Amino acid sequence: MAKLRWGMIGGGEGSQIGPAHRLGAGLDGHFEFTAGALDHRPDAGRDYGKRLGLAEDRAYGDWREMLAGEKGRDDRIDLVTVATPNATHFEITKAFLEAGFHVLCEKPMTMTVEEGEEIVRLTKSTGRICAVNYGYTGYSLVRHMRAMVARGDLGRIRLVKAEFAHGHHADAADADNPRVRWRYDPAQAGVSAQFADCGIHALHMASFVIGQEVDRMSADTVSCIESRVLEDDAMLNLRFDGGTVGRLWTSSIALGNQHGLSIQVFGEKGGLRWAQEQPNQLYYMPLGQRLQVIERGEANLSPEADRTSRVTIGHAEGMPLAFANIYADLAEAIRAEKDGRAMDPAANLYPRAEDGLRSMAAVFAVAQSGKAQGAWVDARPPMFRT
Amino acid sequence: MAKLRWGMIGGGEGSQIGPAHRLGAGLDGHFEFTAGALDHRPDAGRDYGKRLGLAEDRAYGDWREMLAGEKGRDDRIDLVTVATPNATHFEITKAFLEAGFHVLCEKPMTMTVEEGEEIVRLTKSTGRICAVNYGYTGYSLVRHMRAMVARGDLGRIRLVKAEFAHGHHADAADADNPRVRWRYDPAQAGVSAQFADCGIHALHMASFVIGQEVDRMSADTVSCIESRVLEDDAMLNLRFDGGTVGRLWTSSIALGNQHGLSIQVFGEKGGLRWAQEQPNQLYYMPLGQRLQVIERGEANLSPEADRTSRVTIGHAEGMPLAFANIYADLAEAIRAEKDGRAMDPAANLYPRAEDGLRSMAAVFAVAQSGKAQGAWVDARPPMFRT
Amino acid sequence: MAKLRWGMIGGGEGSQIGPAHRLGAGLDGHFEFTAGALDHRPDAGRDYGKRLGLAEDRAYGDWREMLAGEKGRDDRIDLVTVATPNATHFEITKAFLEAGFHVLCEKPMTMTVEEGEEIVRLTKSTGRICAVNYGYTGYSLVRHMRAMVARGDLGRIRLVKAEFAHGHHADAADADNPRVRWRYDPAQAGVSAQFADCGIHALHMASFVIGQEVDRMSADTVSCIESRVLEDDAMLNLRFDGGTVGRLWTSSIALGNQHGLSIQVFGEKGGLRWAQEQPNQLYYMPLGQRLQVIERGEANLSPEADRTSRVTIGHAEGMPLAFANIYADLAEAIRAEKDGRAMDPAANLYPRAEDGLRSMAAVFAVAQSGKAQGAWVDARPPMFRT
Amino acid sequence: MAKLRWGMIGGGEGSQIGPAHRLGAGLDGHFEFTAGALDHRPDAGRDYGKRLGLAEDRAYGDWREMLAGEKGRDDRIDLVTVATPNATHFEITKAFLEAGFHVLCEKPMTMTVEEGEEIVRLTKSTGRICAVNYGYTGYSLVRHMRAMVARGDLGRIRLVKAEFAHGHHADAADADNPRVRWRYDPAQAGVSAQFADCGIHALHMASFVIGQEVDRMSADTVSCIESRVLEDDAMLNLRFDGGTVGRLWTSSIALGNQHGLSIQVFGEKGGLRWAQEQPNQLYYMPLGQRLQVIERGEANLSPEADRTSRVTIGHAEGMPLAFANIYADLAEAIRAEKDGRAMDPAANLYPRAEDGLRSMAAVFAVAQSGKAQGAWVDARPPMFRT
Repeated sequence: MAKLRWGMIGGGEGSQIGPAHRLGAGLDGHFEFTAGALDHRPDAGRDYGKRLGLAEDRAYGDWREMLAGEKGRDDRIDLVTVATPNATHFEITKAFLEAGFHVLCEKPMTMTVEEGEEIVRLTKSTGRICAVNYGYTGYSLVRHMRAMVARGDLGRIRLVKAEFAHGHHADAADADNPRVRWRYDPAQAGVSAQFADCGIHALHMASFVIGQEVDRMSADTVSCIESRVLEDDAMLNLRFDGGTVGRLWTSSIALGNQHGLSIQVFGEKGGLRWAQEQPNQLYYMPLGQRLQVIERGEANLSPEADRTSRVTIGHAEGMPLAFANIYADLAEAIRAEKDGRAMDPAANLYPRAEDGLRSMAAVFAVAQSGKAQGAWVDARPPMFRT
Repeated sequence: MAKLRWGMIGGGEGSQIGPAHRLGAGLDGHFEFTAGALDHRPDAGRDYGKRLGLAEDRAYGDWREMLAGEKGRDDRIDLVTVATPNATHFEITKAFLEAGFHVLCEKPMTMTVEEGEEIVRLTKSTGRICAVNYGYTGYSLVRHMRAMVARGDLGRIRLVKAEFAHGHHADAADADNPRVRWRYDPAQAGVSAQFADCGIHALHMASFVIGQEVDRMSADTVSCIESRVLEDDAMLNLRFDGGTVGRLWTSSIALGNQHGLSIQVFGEKGGLRWAQEQPNQLYYMPLGQRLQVIERGEANLSPEADRTSRVTIGHAEGMPLAFANIYADLAEAIRAEKDGRAMDPAANLYPRAEDGLRSMAAVFAVAQSGKAQGAWVDARPPMFRT
Repeated sequence: MAKLRWGMIGGGEGSQIGPAHRLGAGLDGHFEFTAGALDHRPDAGRDYGKRLGLAEDRAYGDWREMLAGEKGRDDRIDLVTVATPNATHFEITKAFLEAGFHVLCEKPMTMTVEEGEEIVRLTKSTGRICAVNYGYTGYSLVRHMRAMVARGDLGRIRLVKAEFAHGHHADAADADNPRVRWRYDPAQAGVSAQFADCGIHALHMASFVIGQEVDRMSADTVSCIESRVLEDDAMLNLRFDGGTVGRLWTSSIALGNQHGLSIQVFGEKGGLRWAQEQPNQLYYMPLGQRLQVIERGEANLSPEADRTSRVTIGHAEGMPLAFANIYADLAEAIRAEKDGRAMDPAANLYPRAEDGLRSMAAVFAVAQSGKAQGAWVDARPPMFRT
Repeated sequence: MAKLRWGMIGGGEGSQIGPAHRLGAGLDGHFEFTAGALDHRPDAGRDYGKRLGLAEDRAYGDWREMLAGEKGRDDRIDLVTVATPNATHFEITKAFLEAGFHVLCEKPMTMTVEEGEEIVRLTKSTGRICAVNYGYTGYSLVRHMRAMVARGDLGRIRLVKAEFAHGHHADAADADNPRVRWRYDPAQAGVSAQFADCGIHALHMASFVIGQEVDRMSADTVSCIESRVLEDDAMLNLRFDGGTVGRLWTSSIALGNQHGLSIQVFGEKGGLRWAQEQPNQLYYMPLGQRLQVIERGEANLSPEADRTSRVTIGHAEGMPLAFANIYADLAEAIRAEKDGRAMDPAANLYPRAEDGLRSMAAVFAVAQSGKAQGAWVDARPPMFRT
């Protein structure tokens, strides 16, 4: 299988996100890093790109130059990752979609719901992919939870409980630190801090696993460190479109929780529990039986789990592999399109523009409900309120 | 030290609650089982009492007979436990308090807030103790959490998160079972099912640990099994009188959770995590340091922890000992009164009539907010709304 | 059921062992504390006994006085616990057995194998019980492991792995502390330190669970703190009489292990894992299936587990209840004898003089093999080497 | 940084080991897959190599052809991985070393101790690297354990306890399965089965962490499934050259253990515990303090830990990244040589020919001691017995 050509915008020298994407894209050998505009300083970006092995003419100075350069080539990139500051995601993603490129956009996909809707419409009109980087759903056992729910192992899902609660912003002294402060400042972060940063991962995971989208929500948002304008802790009550009730807690002051992304699913016929920090075990309680431990890499799980598992049972797999699974899904989608065949349904699970849009609508819903003492609000993007 | 004389009403042959109280009261040798009216069938109660070793004249046929009999004796009982059906708690407790007896009442202390207020007033006018049986706060490490908070180890408490979520009522078939059904039937259970049954334990523990009482709350209550009128799952957002925010989840359909009582406390200077199922470890994260494991029985914990710890570090202690700690507190309170001395402050932690009253107010607040789409309601008993 | 009369020798004021025994004996109400010779100082013992509620004439000054006093009474004690210094166990136990009393002797039962054999012979000739206090086998799930093995759930047992490794003697400074030092001094402790103190619990548990006795062993004993003459760490390889292989590790320098008693059993059809520090869960892996969690208090476990479980599933039970289960076994044995009926087979599991003797033989075998570079030695008492 | 050129021998289509090595070598972008002889069937190997992107002239039919082809090139490969059947490792490794190539050889490096010594001599005479693939020591927290020991955090190390015990060969029916059977057949597997397969990983890790080599050992080897000639369970007692005592258990019949590689280290000043299945946490008990949890990715650990950690704290990392760390060490070693500079000491931790040789000596020592009832034997290769 020939490698696909991959480009990146952002992720310059010293960033955390650049190496993570290069690791995820390159890990399985699906993508060759072929083009990049890695830095907002053109020279620095070109230089770093060349040092990373890009050809002279594909180490670009900025994204517009890259768009122009790649558009005209026969060997144009197959996928571009947008890992720039949040406020620029929309403009860049839009431009590349319109030019016929597939895009993987960092979260948040946009800054407003309206922009999100425009991206969704664009993916439809162009037939191009706009994936959004919710990498945690790439874990093998998260995929398996979804498969178990979909095939009915748990019966109707009554309740889903998701958390993303850590303690890394619990230090009041640190709250004045510029690296942290901007996150809680509406001028820079928008209408939500902790929910927009972490909570949407938990919400996306809940939707992904139960195969339902959120309709309505009520949010209790608080700033535990009083100098903060935006919330550092929020509890959401949710109603999903398939009738499931949701509870979601997110926090950045939860000292003693290290990462804190976890999910529990309760159905008529069984319950599931999974946590990102120990991702190779899934706890399953079938109704009337004992708690049992499902291991990543077990025989006879599901095609979705098998496809996203690389090493034998008992060996730990971690976040970089989960992330790589999103890239592997995209590689399959792109190749299937090239080959004119249907894609492997077990790979058709990457997060989409619709997910990015729904997250944006949820962020605004949290802010709205939070200000209104937890009043119930519509959490759907207008275009999905039929 | 001479044993105190102890009596019990209810807890007849075949009940679970009778042996539990006899175990708790007798475990440390503080109380001698001296009198009882154990069954609503007088003959059965008398017979069972005698078989348990009661003297002929103190194995009573009903509580009124017991009250009359004990009132007149010089060697009257020092404490009576009321473990009868919920609807009778108020009447019996009231009668014994008025006759000058100390009472330990099973939860719920009363069926209404008004009754609860009356009991509180009675304890003040009579100077008698009315304890309420929230046994989980008897655990040594729960006591230690309270001590840590009280002495400032965690700084100001920002947030408390409590759960009591199990899966023992998750079977829809079982929902029609008479043993379960009544719990969700307002005619028999009142205005709340799962919160009144389990949630109040979590709420009492949160209050106990942080040393604050709940002011306001918003509740999302749902019946996951649709045939149920009362809730089998609820999420509460709380505001405490010392400024702490609370989150409380209770459920009876959470398959995969066995017992599910746990608490997390997040302060300015550290976080704590404890769960009833593994009660001998307390997880403590001091700000800026690593997670550490506090063991029950450690040297140099707190007087409150030391007093409630019986075996050496590393050996498991469980629920019956926690329960016995409540009885030990009461023994100390009664003896201190007899001796005309101040009681050991480390024992002065048993749950009181005020706690029973506050639980009742919380139950009605949950029902009220739940019906009103989670509107914020006052969770305080009227007599504490200054 | 009338209470049985119980006496204790040793366990004076300030000791740890006295309260533990009174708790265990009294917890279920089977035994009334009736007689005692609690201290090697006669006056102190009499005084303490009276304060604990003993009648004037049964608060004895020493064990000989107690033997003489009780022997002549119609209402003589039904059981005497011997909790005196190790070197006196044999003499006292022997005297009470010969006088027709049932005895529960603290471990070690004797100081030599010959004395152990004499006790075993005495129990046979007198028909009296001599139980030995291996309290950890009283845990409900340890009983259940034994039942699972006995009824064949695991098939033939291939291997048993037991550990009792803690870190409480790891401080070299503390090694010179008189409280610790004597334990590693042959003049006071005999031929073995850590194995004799802790290892024999693990070995007894292994034998108890698999229903086999050890035949041969090889031991590697070391003194990690060099000033110690006796071992603070030992590894044993074992062969049991039913063909099972054993591995047993015991240590007192294993920093990071708090208590460290655990057992794993591997059979043809499944494996089990249990640890004293979390005694309410038993991990079970049936061949070809998933790991599952057996909970104490589950429905349909085994009569042996049911009998030793007191509170409902999900509530923690701990060591004092396990210890009380040994007393409950003895109460049943004594009552069955009085009633002239067969005892409940599920109670017939208390550790016996034979177990005390086998431990003593194992202690000497460890010392012998340890000195001989791990040479394989016969671990059986001579009287069982047919 | 220009990529290094990497070749592989073995790891043909359908193998597990081929993708694992390509993942590990490629993950950080240090190596470009440039040449290969992937299959013992020349045509299949050439075809598969080309499909994996090798140039026509570097997709070789067998290793001799590859050696001849690469030797003559200016752009010859910088490193070759040998992942062929065990019996061929020696011959191939030897030939490539002699031709001046750096080699990473799968374990076992050779089939005899003599061959191992020859490889060690060759690395010295040629100045070439021969690394051996003990990938588990690539984990960040394993590296940190070594660093903690080396810098004295634990004081003198008294005892190390290592395990690699799983249950994947516990099914007696499966024992007759050809895929499993050969492992226990001396004609195919040599003198040891489970120790040679898994135990040497645990032994290498123990040596790596404490920075000492094993001098002497005593082994108890058993075949729990009786039809097996070679051992499926072994317990080793060890003495290391720095005075540390070792205990090592390995098993393939330990049902309930999934992977089962773990290590505990006990020193004068603290203890450590780590397990491969949860590799992102390290449990540390400093003497006289509480157990604390060290997290992978923590600030201020050690250069060795930092270098081998890729994603932020709280995110799981797994085995493929540990494996890639070995390749990253080798890349640094090769580049440092090319650049004529000293290599980063934090990277100078890859397993070496000496380690491969010592493992081989240990395998024969286990077999020898096992047959001699656990007699103590010299575990050192002759060339290291000074």
